Amino acid sequence: MVNSCRVCTECQAGHENYCLNGNTQTYASKDKDGTITQGGYSTFVVVDEDFVINIPAVIDLAEAGPLLCAGITVYSPLRRWGVSPGKKVAIVGMGGLGHLAVKLATASGAEVTVFTTSPDKTADAKRFGAKEVVINQDGADFSRLKHTFDFALDTVPYKHDLDRFIPTLKRDAVYCRVGVGKVVDSNEIGQMGLVLYRNALAGSNTGGIQETQDMVNFCALNNIKPEITKIAMNGIDDAWRRVFDKQARYRFVIDMGAQRS
Amino acid sequence: MVNSCRVCTECQAGHENYCLNGNTQTYASKDKDGTITQGGYSTFVVVDEDFVINIPAVIDLAEAGPLLCAGITVYSPLRRWGVSPGKKVAIVGMGGLGHLAVKLATASGAEVTVFTTSPDKTADAKRFGAKEVVINQDGADFSRLKHTFDFALDTVPYKHDLDRFIPTLKRDAVYCRVGVGKVVDSNEIGQMGLVLYRNALAGSNTGGIQETQDMVNFCALNNIKPEITKIAMNGIDDAWRRVFDKQARYRFVIDMGAQRS
Repeated sequence: MVNSCRVCTECQAGHENYCLNGNTQTYASKDKDGTITQGGYSTFVVVDEDFVINIPAVIDLAEAGPLLCAGITVYSPLRRWGVSPGKKVAIVGMGGLGHLAVKLATASGAEVTVFTTSPDKTADAKRFGAKEVVINQDGADFSRLKHTFDFALDTVPYKHDLDRFIPTLKRDAVYCRVGVGKVVDSNEIGQMGLVLYRNALAGSNTGGIQETQDMVNFCALNNIKPEITKIAMNGIDDAWRRVFDKQARYRFVIDMGAQRS
Repeated sequence: MVNSCRVCTECQAGHENYCLNGNTQTYASKDKDGTITQGGYSTFVVVDEDFVINIPAVIDLAEAGPLLCAGITVYSPLRRWGVSPGKKVAIVGMGGLGHLAVKLATASGAEVTVFTTSPDKTADAKRFGAKEVVINQDGADFSRLKHTFDFALDTVPYKHDLDRFIPTLKRDAVYCRVGVGKVVDSNEIGQMGLVLYRNALAGSNTGGIQETQDMVNFCALNNIKPEITKIAMNGIDDAWRRVFDKQARYRFVIDMGAQRS
Protein backbone atom coordinates (compact mmCIF):
# COMPACT_ATOMS: atom_id res chain seq x y z
CA MET A 1 0.00 0.00 0.00
CA VAL A 2 1.10 3.61 -0.51
CA ASN A 3 -1.30 5.39 1.84
CA SER A 4 -4.11 4.93 4.38
CA CYS A 5 -6.44 7.17 6.38
CA ARG A 6 -3.89 7.36 9.23
CA VAL A 7 -6.50 8.39 11.81
CA CYS A 8 -8.60 5.27 12.44
CA THR A 9 -7.82 2.99 15.38
CA GLU A 10 -6.13 0.48 13.06
CA CYS A 11 -3.82 3.04 11.44
CA GLN A 12 -3.02 4.52 14.84
CA ALA A 13 -2.09 1.04 16.05
CA GLY A 14 0.26 0.47 13.11
CA HIS A 15 -2.14 -1.79 11.25
CA GLU A 16 -2.47 0.38 8.14
CA ASN A 17 -3.17 -2.85 6.24
CA TYR A 18 -6.43 -3.14 8.19
CA CYS A 19 -7.34 0.58 7.79
CA LEU A 20 -11.04 0.97 8.55
CA ASN A 21 -11.43 3.59 5.85
CA GLY A 22 -9.70 1.60 3.11
CA ASN A 23 -6.04 2.17 2.29
CA THR A 24 -4.54 3.09 -1.07
CA GLN A 25 -3.13 -0.01 -2.71
CA THR A 26 0.09 0.29 -4.69
CA TYR A 27 -1.69 -0.94 -7.79
CA ALA A 28 -5.18 -0.18 -9.15
CA SER A 29 -6.33 2.01 -6.22
CA LYS A 30 -7.78 5.49 -6.56
CA ASP A 31 -5.14 7.89 -5.26
CA LYS A 32 -6.03 11.05 -3.38
CA ASP A 33 -5.38 13.12 -6.51
CA GLY A 34 -8.01 11.02 -8.32
CA THR A 35 -5.56 9.08 -10.50
CA ILE A 36 -5.31 5.29 -10.41
CA THR A 37 -2.12 3.86 -8.91
CA GLN A 38 0.05 1.86 -11.35
CA GLY A 39 2.41 0.12 -8.93
CA GLY A 40 5.55 -1.39 -10.37
CA TYR A 41 4.47 -0.61 -13.90
CA SER A 42 5.12 3.09 -13.24
CA THR A 43 8.32 4.76 -14.39
CA PHE A 44 8.43 6.42 -10.98
CA VAL A 45 6.18 6.63 -7.93
CA VAL A 46 5.74 9.50 -5.46
CA VAL A 47 5.02 8.14 -1.97
CA ASP A 48 4.71 9.87 1.38
CA GLU A 49 7.77 9.09 3.49
CA ASP A 50 5.59 7.35 6.09
CA PHE A 51 4.88 4.65 3.50
CA VAL A 52 8.45 4.18 2.25
CA ILE A 53 10.33 1.05 3.32
CA ASN A 54 14.09 1.26 3.74
CA ILE A 55 15.88 -1.48 1.81
CA PRO A 56 19.25 -2.30 3.43
CA ALA A 57 22.16 -2.29 0.98
CA VAL A 58 22.70 -6.06 1.38
CA ILE A 59 19.35 -6.76 -0.31
CA ASP A 60 19.35 -6.58 -4.09
CA LEU A 61 16.44 -4.46 -5.32
CA ALA A 62 15.17 -7.23 -7.60
CA GLU A 63 15.08 -9.52 -4.57
CA ALA A 64 13.41 -6.87 -2.42
CA GLY A 65 10.36 -6.80 -4.70
CA PRO A 66 8.79 -10.11 -3.65
CA LEU A 67 9.45 -9.33 0.02
CA LEU A 68 7.03 -6.42 -0.16
CA CYS A 69 4.03 -8.61 -0.75
CA ALA A 70 4.84 -12.32 -0.47
CA GLY A 71 7.36 -11.70 2.32
CA ILE A 72 5.16 -9.59 4.59
CA THR A 73 2.09 -11.72 3.83
CA VAL A 74 3.76 -14.73 5.44
CA TYR A 75 5.89 -12.88 8.01
CA SER A 76 2.91 -11.21 9.68
CA PRO A 77 0.99 -14.41 10.53
CA LEU A 78 4.21 -16.14 11.64
CA ARG A 79 4.66 -13.32 14.17
CA ARG A 80 0.96 -13.06 15.08
CA TRP A 81 0.82 -16.72 16.01
CA GLY A 82 4.12 -16.84 17.87
CA VAL A 83 6.36 -18.87 15.57
CA SER A 84 9.61 -19.06 17.54
CA PRO A 85 12.23 -21.53 18.84
CA GLY A 86 10.70 -24.84 19.93
CA LYS A 87 7.58 -24.45 17.83
CA LYS A 88 6.65 -26.91 15.09
CA VAL A 89 5.19 -25.27 12.02
CA ALA A 90 3.55 -26.62 8.88
CA ILE A 91 3.92 -24.66 5.65
CA VAL A 92 1.32 -25.88 3.16
CA GLY A 93 2.22 -25.06 -0.42
CA MET A 94 5.73 -23.95 -1.39
CA GLY A 95 5.48 -21.38 -4.15
CA GLY A 96 6.18 -17.66 -4.12
CA LEU A 97 4.80 -17.20 -0.62
CA GLY A 98 5.50 -20.64 0.78
CA HIS A 99 9.22 -20.72 0.01
CA LEU A 100 9.65 -17.43 1.89
CA ALA A 101 7.55 -18.79 4.75
CA VAL A 102 9.91 -21.78 5.05
CA LYS A 103 12.95 -19.48 5.22
CA LEU A 104 11.33 -17.02 7.65
CA ALA A 105 9.92 -19.67 9.98
CA THR A 106 13.26 -21.52 10.01
CA ALA A 107 15.17 -18.30 10.76
CA SER A 108 12.68 -17.67 13.57
CA GLY A 109 13.85 -20.86 15.21
CA ALA A 110 10.88 -23.09 14.42
CA GLU A 111 11.01 -26.65 13.13
CA VAL A 112 9.37 -26.59 9.71
CA THR A 113 7.47 -29.29 7.84
CA VAL A 114 6.57 -28.54 4.22
CA PHE A 115 3.48 -29.98 2.53
CA THR A 116 3.84 -29.81 -1.25
CA THR A 117 2.15 -31.38 -4.25
CA SER A 118 5.50 -31.24 -6.12
CA PRO A 119 7.90 -34.01 -5.10
CA ASP A 120 10.65 -32.28 -7.09
CA LYS A 121 10.57 -29.39 -4.61
CA THR A 122 11.80 -31.65 -1.79
CA ALA A 123 15.49 -30.78 -2.10
CA ASP A 124 14.69 -27.08 -2.29
CA ALA A 125 12.51 -27.27 0.82
CA LYS A 126 15.38 -28.85 2.75
CA ARG A 127 17.78 -26.23 1.41
CA PHE A 128 15.41 -23.48 2.59
CA GLY A 129 15.48 -24.97 6.07
CA ALA A 130 12.62 -27.49 6.29
CA LYS A 131 13.26 -30.46 8.53
CA GLU A 132 10.66 -32.61 6.81
CA VAL A 133 8.79 -32.64 3.50
CA VAL A 134 5.42 -34.34 3.09
CA ILE A 135 4.03 -34.98 -0.37
CA ASN A 136 0.45 -33.74 -0.39
CA GLN A 137 -1.39 -36.00 -2.80
CA ASP A 138 -4.97 -37.24 -2.81
CA GLY A 139 -5.21 -40.09 -0.34
CA ALA A 140 -1.89 -39.28 1.35
CA ASP A 141 -1.92 -40.44 4.96
CA PHE A 142 -1.09 -37.71 7.47
CA SER A 143 -2.10 -39.76 10.52
CA ARG A 144 1.47 -40.09 11.83
CA LEU A 145 1.46 -36.26 12.10
CA LYS A 146 -1.61 -36.14 14.35
CA HIS A 147 -1.47 -33.26 16.86
CA THR A 148 2.02 -32.24 15.74
CA PHE A 149 1.94 -28.56 14.80
CA ASP A 150 1.72 -25.39 16.88
CA PHE A 151 0.77 -23.45 13.77
CA ALA A 152 0.09 -24.07 10.11
CA LEU A 153 0.40 -21.51 7.33
CA ASP A 154 -1.40 -22.40 4.12
CA THR A 155 -0.18 -20.53 1.05
CA VAL A 156 -2.13 -22.52 -1.53
CA PRO A 157 -3.93 -20.03 -3.81
CA TYR A 158 -6.85 -22.26 -4.72
CA LYS A 159 -9.57 -24.21 -2.98
CA HIS A 160 -8.39 -27.50 -1.56
CA ASP A 161 -9.21 -30.06 1.12
CA LEU A 162 -8.54 -28.48 4.52
CA ASP A 163 -10.10 -31.21 6.67
CA ARG A 164 -7.09 -33.46 6.17
CA PHE A 165 -4.78 -30.89 7.78
CA ILE A 166 -6.79 -29.89 10.87
CA PRO A 167 -6.02 -33.12 12.81
CA THR A 168 -2.27 -32.41 12.42
CA LEU A 169 -2.68 -29.41 14.75
CA LYS A 170 -2.07 -29.36 18.49
CA ARG A 171 -4.88 -28.22 20.78
CA ASP A 172 -5.66 -24.53 20.27
CA ALA A 173 -3.40 -24.31 17.22
CA VAL A 174 -4.43 -22.14 14.29
CA TYR A 175 -4.50 -23.03 10.60
CA CYS A 176 -4.07 -19.77 8.70
CA ARG A 177 -4.75 -19.43 4.99
CA VAL A 178 -3.28 -16.43 3.23
CA GLY A 179 -4.34 -17.55 -0.24
CA VAL A 180 -7.95 -16.91 -1.10
CA GLY A 181 -8.44 -18.44 -4.53
CA LYS A 182 -11.34 -17.15 -6.52
CA VAL A 183 -13.39 -14.87 -4.31
CA VAL A 184 -16.47 -16.96 -5.04
CA ASP A 185 -14.74 -20.11 -3.74
CA SER A 186 -15.80 -21.02 -0.22
CA ASN A 187 -13.73 -23.23 2.00
CA GLU A 188 -15.54 -26.41 2.86
CA ILE A 189 -14.47 -27.31 6.34
CA GLY A 190 -16.12 -29.69 8.75
CA GLN A 191 -16.91 -28.12 12.12
CA MET A 192 -16.33 -31.39 13.96
CA GLY A 193 -12.64 -31.23 13.03
CA LEU A 194 -12.32 -27.77 14.60
CA VAL A 195 -14.36 -28.71 17.68
CA LEU A 196 -12.45 -31.87 18.57
CA TYR A 197 -9.24 -30.10 19.53
CA ARG A 198 -10.32 -26.45 19.75
CA ASN A 199 -8.65 -25.45 16.50
CA ALA A 200 -9.34 -22.52 14.21
CA LEU A 201 -9.20 -21.59 10.55
CA ALA A 202 -7.87 -18.04 10.24
CA GLY A 203 -6.93 -15.53 7.57
CA SER A 204 -4.31 -12.79 7.44
CA ASN A 205 -3.78 -9.88 5.08
CA THR A 206 -0.21 -8.55 4.49
CA GLY A 207 1.11 -6.38 7.37
CA GLY A 208 1.52 -2.84 8.63
CA ILE A 209 4.30 -0.44 7.57
CA GLN A 210 6.41 -0.89 10.72
CA GLU A 211 5.99 -4.66 10.54
CA THR A 212 7.01 -4.59 6.87
CA GLN A 213 10.17 -2.69 7.81
CA ASP A 214 10.79 -5.22 10.59
CA MET A 215 10.44 -8.03 8.05
CA VAL A 216 12.89 -6.43 5.61
CA ASN A 217 15.37 -5.87 8.43
CA PHE A 218 14.90 -9.47 9.61
CA CYS A 219 15.63 -10.69 6.08
CA ALA A 220 18.76 -8.52 5.84
CA LEU A 221 19.99 -9.75 9.22
CA ASN A 222 19.33 -13.42 8.42
CA ASN A 223 20.40 -13.32 4.78
CA ILE A 224 16.92 -14.31 3.61
CA LYS A 225 16.17 -13.69 -0.05
CA PRO A 226 13.43 -14.87 -2.33
CA GLU A 227 14.44 -17.23 -5.15
CA ILE A 228 13.76 -15.18 -8.24
CA THR A 229 13.80 -15.47 -12.01
CA LYS A 230 14.20 -12.14 -13.75
CA ILE A 231 12.22 -11.67 -16.92
CA ALA A 232 11.57 -8.83 -19.34
CA MET A 233 8.04 -7.60 -20.03
CA ASN A 234 7.75 -9.80 -23.09
CA GLY A 235 8.34 -12.88 -20.94
CA ILE A 236 5.13 -12.47 -18.94
CA ASP A 237 2.97 -14.91 -20.92
CA ASP A 238 5.53 -17.66 -20.61
CA ALA A 239 6.06 -16.95 -16.91
CA TRP A 240 2.30 -17.05 -16.27
CA ARG A 241 2.10 -20.47 -17.92
CA ARG A 242 4.95 -21.71 -15.75
CA VAL A 243 3.14 -20.46 -12.63
CA PHE A 244 0.04 -22.44 -13.61
CA ASP A 245 2.15 -25.51 -14.39
CA LYS A 246 3.78 -25.25 -10.92
CA GLN A 247 7.13 -24.66 -12.59
CA ALA A 248 7.90 -21.23 -11.09
CA ARG A 249 11.02 -21.33 -8.90
CA TYR A 250 9.84 -19.33 -7.02
CA ARG A 251 9.03 -15.77 -7.97
CA PHE A 252 9.24 -14.00 -11.31
CA VAL A 253 10.49 -10.41 -11.18
CA ILE A 254 9.91 -8.17 -14.20
CA ASP A 255 12.97 -6.10 -14.99
CA MET A 256 11.34 -2.88 -16.19
CA GLY A 257 14.77 -1.54 -17.19
CA ALA A 258 15.26 -4.46 -19.55
CA GLN A 259 11.94 -3.64 -21.13
CA ARG A 260 12.88 -0.06 -21.78
CA SER A 261 16.32 -0.85 -23.20
CA MET B 1 -17.36 -37.57 30.81
CA VAL B 2 -16.81 -40.00 33.64
CA ASN B 3 -13.16 -40.91 33.08
CA SER B 4 -10.10 -40.25 30.91
CA CYS B 5 -6.58 -41.67 30.57
CA ARG B 6 -5.28 -39.17 33.18
CA VAL B 7 -1.68 -39.48 32.03
CA CYS B 8 -1.50 -37.71 28.66
CA THR B 9 -0.38 -34.10 28.44
CA GLU B 10 -3.98 -32.94 28.05
CA CYS B 11 -5.26 -34.77 31.11
CA GLN B 12 -2.26 -33.60 33.11
CA ALA B 13 -3.07 -30.02 32.08
CA GLY B 14 -6.68 -30.36 33.23
CA HIS B 15 -8.05 -30.73 29.70
CA GLU B 16 -9.57 -34.19 30.20
CA ASN B 17 -12.11 -33.22 27.52
CA TYR B 18 -9.24 -33.21 25.01
CA CYS B 19 -7.70 -36.47 26.32
CA LEU B 20 -5.33 -37.81 23.68
CA ASN B 21 -6.31 -41.38 24.44
CA GLY B 22 -10.05 -40.81 24.30
CA ASN B 23 -12.06 -40.24 27.46
CA THR B 24 -15.06 -42.20 28.70
CA GLN B 25 -18.24 -40.34 27.84
CA THR B 26 -21.10 -40.37 30.33
CA TYR B 27 -23.32 -41.99 27.72
CA ALA B 28 -22.63 -44.71 25.14
CA SER B 29 -18.90 -45.05 25.88
CA LYS B 30 -17.16 -48.33 26.63
CA ASP B 31 -16.28 -48.26 30.32
CA LYS B 32 -13.09 -49.86 31.69
CA ASP B 33 -15.09 -52.86 32.92
CA GLY B 34 -16.27 -53.43 29.35
CA THR B 35 -19.85 -52.27 29.90
CA ILE B 36 -21.40 -49.40 27.97
CA THR B 37 -22.14 -46.23 29.95
CA GLN B 38 -25.83 -45.33 30.19
CA GLY B 39 -25.58 -41.77 31.48
CA GLY B 40 -28.71 -40.23 32.95
CA TYR B 41 -30.78 -43.24 31.98
CA SER B 42 -29.07 -45.25 34.71
CA THR B 43 -30.69 -45.83 38.08
CA PHE B 44 -27.31 -45.05 39.63
CA VAL B 45 -23.79 -44.38 38.39
CA VAL B 46 -20.45 -45.19 40.01
CA VAL B 47 -17.86 -42.54 39.16
CA ASP B 48 -14.31 -42.00 40.39
CA GLU B 49 -14.24 -39.03 42.75
CA ASP B 50 -11.89 -37.17 40.36
CA PHE B 51 -14.77 -36.96 37.88
CA VAL B 52 -17.50 -35.91 40.31
CA ILE B 53 -18.70 -32.30 40.23
CA ASN B 54 -19.88 -30.72 43.46
CA ILE B 55 -23.30 -29.12 43.08
CA PRO B 56 -23.76 -26.27 45.57
CA ALA B 57 -27.01 -26.49 47.56
CA VAL B 58 -28.41 -23.33 45.92
CA ILE B 59 -28.63 -25.12 42.57
CA ASP B 60 -31.61 -27.41 42.12
CA LEU B 61 -30.50 -30.79 40.77
CA ALA B 62 -32.92 -30.60 37.82
CA GLU B 63 -31.35 -27.26 36.91
CA ALA B 64 -27.83 -28.63 37.38
CA GLY B 65 -28.35 -31.18 34.61
CA PRO B 66 -28.14 -28.83 31.63
CA LEU B 67 -25.13 -27.04 33.15
CA LEU B 68 -23.07 -30.20 32.82
CA CYS B 69 -23.13 -30.16 29.06
CA ALA B 70 -24.76 -27.01 27.64
CA GLY B 71 -23.32 -24.83 30.42
CA ILE B 72 -19.70 -25.97 30.20
CA THR B 73 -19.84 -26.10 26.41
CA VAL B 74 -20.47 -22.34 26.27
CA TYR B 75 -18.56 -21.36 29.44
CA SER B 76 -15.26 -22.83 28.21
CA PRO B 77 -15.04 -20.79 24.97
CA LEU B 78 -16.20 -17.63 26.78
CA ARG B 79 -13.21 -18.05 29.11
CA ARG B 80 -10.79 -19.21 26.41
CA TRP B 81 -11.45 -16.09 24.35
CA GLY B 82 -11.41 -13.62 27.21
CA VAL B 83 -15.03 -12.57 27.55
CA SER B 84 -14.92 -10.02 30.38
CA PRO B 85 -15.97 -6.47 31.28
CA GLY B 86 -15.74 -4.07 28.34
CA LYS B 87 -15.97 -6.80 25.70
CA LYS B 88 -18.76 -6.95 23.14
CA VAL B 89 -19.96 -10.45 22.45
CA ALA B 90 -22.34 -11.91 19.89
CA ILE B 91 -24.33 -15.00 20.81
CA VAL B 92 -25.72 -16.58 17.65
CA GLY B 93 -28.71 -18.83 18.29
CA MET B 94 -30.53 -18.79 21.63
CA GLY B 95 -31.64 -22.31 22.46
CA GLY B 96 -30.43 -24.69 25.16
CA LEU B 97 -26.82 -23.59 24.81
CA GLY B 98 -27.37 -20.02 23.64
CA HIS B 99 -29.60 -18.92 26.51
CA LEU B 100 -26.96 -20.06 29.00
CA ALA B 101 -24.29 -18.29 26.96
CA VAL B 102 -26.24 -15.02 27.22
CA LYS B 103 -26.50 -15.38 31.00
CA LEU B 104 -22.86 -16.42 31.44
CA ALA B 105 -21.42 -13.74 29.16
CA THR B 106 -23.56 -11.06 30.82
CA ALA B 107 -22.50 -12.19 34.30
CA SER B 108 -18.90 -12.07 33.05
CA GLY B 109 -19.34 -8.34 32.44
CA ALA B 110 -19.60 -8.38 28.66
CA GLU B 111 -22.12 -6.49 26.55
CA VAL B 112 -24.16 -9.13 24.74
CA THR B 113 -25.95 -9.02 21.39
CA VAL B 114 -28.17 -11.97 20.55
CA PHE B 115 -28.82 -13.12 16.98
CA THR B 116 -31.96 -15.25 16.80
CA THR B 117 -34.28 -16.50 14.09
CA SER B 118 -37.17 -16.34 16.60
CA PRO B 119 -38.51 -12.78 17.13
CA ASP B 120 -40.59 -14.06 20.04
CA LYS B 121 -37.40 -14.77 21.99
CA THR B 122 -36.56 -11.05 22.13
CA ALA B 123 -38.03 -10.37 25.56
CA ASP B 124 -36.36 -13.48 27.00
CA ALA B 125 -33.01 -12.43 25.57
CA LYS B 126 -33.29 -9.04 27.28
CA ARG B 127 -34.34 -10.73 30.51
CA PHE B 128 -31.28 -13.02 30.32
CA GLY B 129 -29.09 -9.92 30.05
CA ALA B 130 -28.70 -9.14 26.35
CA LYS B 131 -28.34 -5.46 25.52
CA GLU B 132 -29.47 -5.95 21.93
CA VAL B 133 -31.36 -8.54 19.92
CA VAL B 134 -30.93 -8.89 16.16
CA ILE B 135 -33.38 -10.95 14.15
CA ASN B 136 -31.38 -13.28 11.94
CA GLN B 137 -33.44 -13.77 8.81
CA ASP B 138 -32.40 -14.30 5.22
CA GLY B 139 -31.45 -10.94 3.78
CA ALA B 140 -31.18 -9.25 7.18
CA ASP B 141 -28.70 -6.37 7.03
CA PHE B 142 -25.93 -6.60 9.62
CA SER B 143 -23.85 -3.78 8.10
CA ARG B 144 -24.46 -1.37 11.00
CA LEU B 145 -22.71 -3.98 13.19
CA LYS B 146 -19.52 -4.02 11.11
CA HIS B 147 -16.40 -4.61 13.23
CA THR B 148 -18.39 -4.59 16.48
CA PHE B 149 -17.64 -7.79 18.35
CA ASP B 150 -14.59 -8.98 20.29
CA PHE B 151 -15.91 -12.53 20.16
CA ALA B 152 -18.84 -14.44 18.70
CA LEU B 153 -20.20 -17.73 20.00
CA ASP B 154 -22.39 -19.63 17.56
CA THR B 155 -24.65 -22.24 19.16
CA VAL B 156 -26.70 -23.04 16.05
CA PRO B 157 -26.77 -26.84 15.68
CA TYR B 158 -27.17 -26.92 11.92
CA LYS B 159 -25.35 -25.62 8.86
CA HIS B 160 -26.05 -21.96 8.16
CA ASP B 161 -24.54 -18.93 6.44
CA LEU B 162 -21.43 -17.87 8.39
CA ASP B 163 -20.12 -15.32 5.88
CA ARG B 164 -22.71 -12.75 6.98
CA PHE B 165 -21.38 -12.78 10.55
CA ILE B 166 -17.61 -12.57 9.95
CA PRO B 167 -17.66 -8.82 9.04
CA THR B 168 -19.29 -8.05 12.42
CA LEU B 169 -16.02 -9.06 14.13
CA LYS B 170 -13.25 -6.73 15.21
CA ARG B 171 -9.74 -7.39 13.91
CA ASP B 172 -8.34 -10.65 15.32
CA ALA B 173 -11.69 -11.63 16.80
CA VAL B 174 -12.74 -15.27 16.76
CA TYR B 175 -16.06 -16.75 15.65
CA CYS B 176 -16.48 -20.00 17.58
CA ARG B 177 -19.07 -22.62 16.65
CA VAL B 178 -19.92 -25.19 19.29
CA GLY B 179 -22.72 -26.76 17.25
CA VAL B 180 -21.61 -29.17 14.58
CA GLY B 181 -24.80 -30.21 12.82
CA LYS B 182 -24.64 -33.42 10.90
CA VAL B 183 -21.05 -34.61 10.85
CA VAL B 184 -21.18 -34.78 7.07
CA ASP B 185 -22.12 -31.07 6.87
CA SER B 186 -19.18 -28.85 6.02
CA ASN B 187 -19.15 -25.15 6.78
CA GLU B 188 -18.95 -23.11 3.63
CA ILE B 189 -16.95 -20.05 4.51
CA GLY B 190 -15.23 -17.62 2.16
CA GLN B 191 -11.56 -17.18 2.94
CA MET B 192 -11.60 -13.54 1.83
CA GLY B 193 -13.87 -12.69 4.76
CA LEU B 194 -11.37 -14.18 7.22
CA VAL B 195 -8.38 -12.58 5.49
CA LEU B 196 -9.72 -9.03 5.39
CA TYR B 197 -9.63 -8.48 9.13
CA ARG B 198 -7.55 -11.41 10.37
CA ASN B 199 -10.49 -13.31 11.81
CA ALA B 200 -10.87 -17.00 12.56
CA LEU B 201 -13.52 -19.68 12.66
CA ALA B 202 -12.90 -21.89 15.70
CA GLY B 203 -14.47 -24.83 17.49
CA SER B 204 -14.60 -25.83 21.13
CA ASN B 205 -15.57 -29.07 22.87
CA THR B 206 -17.05 -28.90 26.44
CA GLY B 207 -14.42 -28.32 29.16
CA GLY B 208 -12.16 -30.02 31.70
CA ILE B 209 -13.26 -31.21 35.14
CA GLN B 210 -11.81 -28.28 37.06
CA GLU B 211 -13.26 -25.83 34.55
CA THR B 212 -16.65 -27.55 34.87
CA GLN B 213 -16.49 -27.13 38.64
CA ASP B 214 -15.52 -23.47 38.14
CA MET B 215 -18.55 -23.03 35.88
CA VAL B 216 -20.93 -24.58 38.40
CA ASN B 217 -19.48 -22.39 41.16
CA PHE B 218 -19.77 -19.32 38.91
CA CYS B 219 -23.43 -20.15 38.28
CA ALA B 220 -24.10 -20.58 42.01
CA LEU B 221 -22.38 -17.29 42.81
CA ASN B 222 -24.23 -15.39 40.09
CA ASN B 223 -27.59 -17.11 40.46
CA ILE B 224 -27.43 -18.43 36.90
CA LYS B 225 -29.82 -21.25 36.11
CA PRO B 226 -30.98 -22.81 32.88
CA GLU B 227 -34.62 -22.30 31.95
CA ILE B 228 -36.02 -25.81 32.08
CA THR B 229 -39.21 -27.69 31.40
CA LYS B 230 -39.45 -30.93 33.35
CA ILE B 231 -41.00 -33.85 31.53
CA ALA B 232 -41.54 -37.52 32.27
CA MET B 233 -40.11 -40.22 30.00
CA ASN B 234 -43.36 -40.50 28.09
CA GLY B 235 -43.09 -36.81 27.13
CA ILE B 236 -39.94 -37.26 25.04
CA ASP B 237 -41.58 -37.51 21.62
CA ASP B 238 -43.52 -34.31 22.18
CA ALA B 239 -40.46 -32.51 23.56
CA TRP B 240 -38.39 -33.60 20.56
CA ARG B 241 -40.98 -32.12 18.18
CA ARG B 242 -40.93 -28.87 20.12
CA VAL B 243 -37.14 -28.71 19.83
CA PHE B 244 -37.42 -29.10 16.06
CA ASP B 245 -40.17 -26.49 15.93
CA LYS B 246 -37.96 -24.05 17.89
CA GLN B 247 -40.51 -24.07 20.70
CA ALA B 248 -38.25 -25.39 23.49
CA ARG B 249 -37.86 -22.84 26.31
CA TYR B 250 -35.02 -23.69 26.74
CA ARG B 251 -34.02 -27.12 27.96
CA PHE B 252 -36.10 -30.19 28.65
CA VAL B 253 -35.10 -32.21 31.69
CA ILE B 254 -36.39 -35.75 32.04
CA ASP B 255 -37.52 -36.47 35.58
CA MET B 256 -36.54 -40.13 35.92
CA GLY B 257 -38.28 -40.31 39.31
CA ALA B 258 -41.56 -39.32 37.70
CA GLN B 259 -41.09 -42.17 35.24
CA ARG B 260 -40.58 -44.74 37.95
CA SER B 261 -43.51 -43.57 40.08
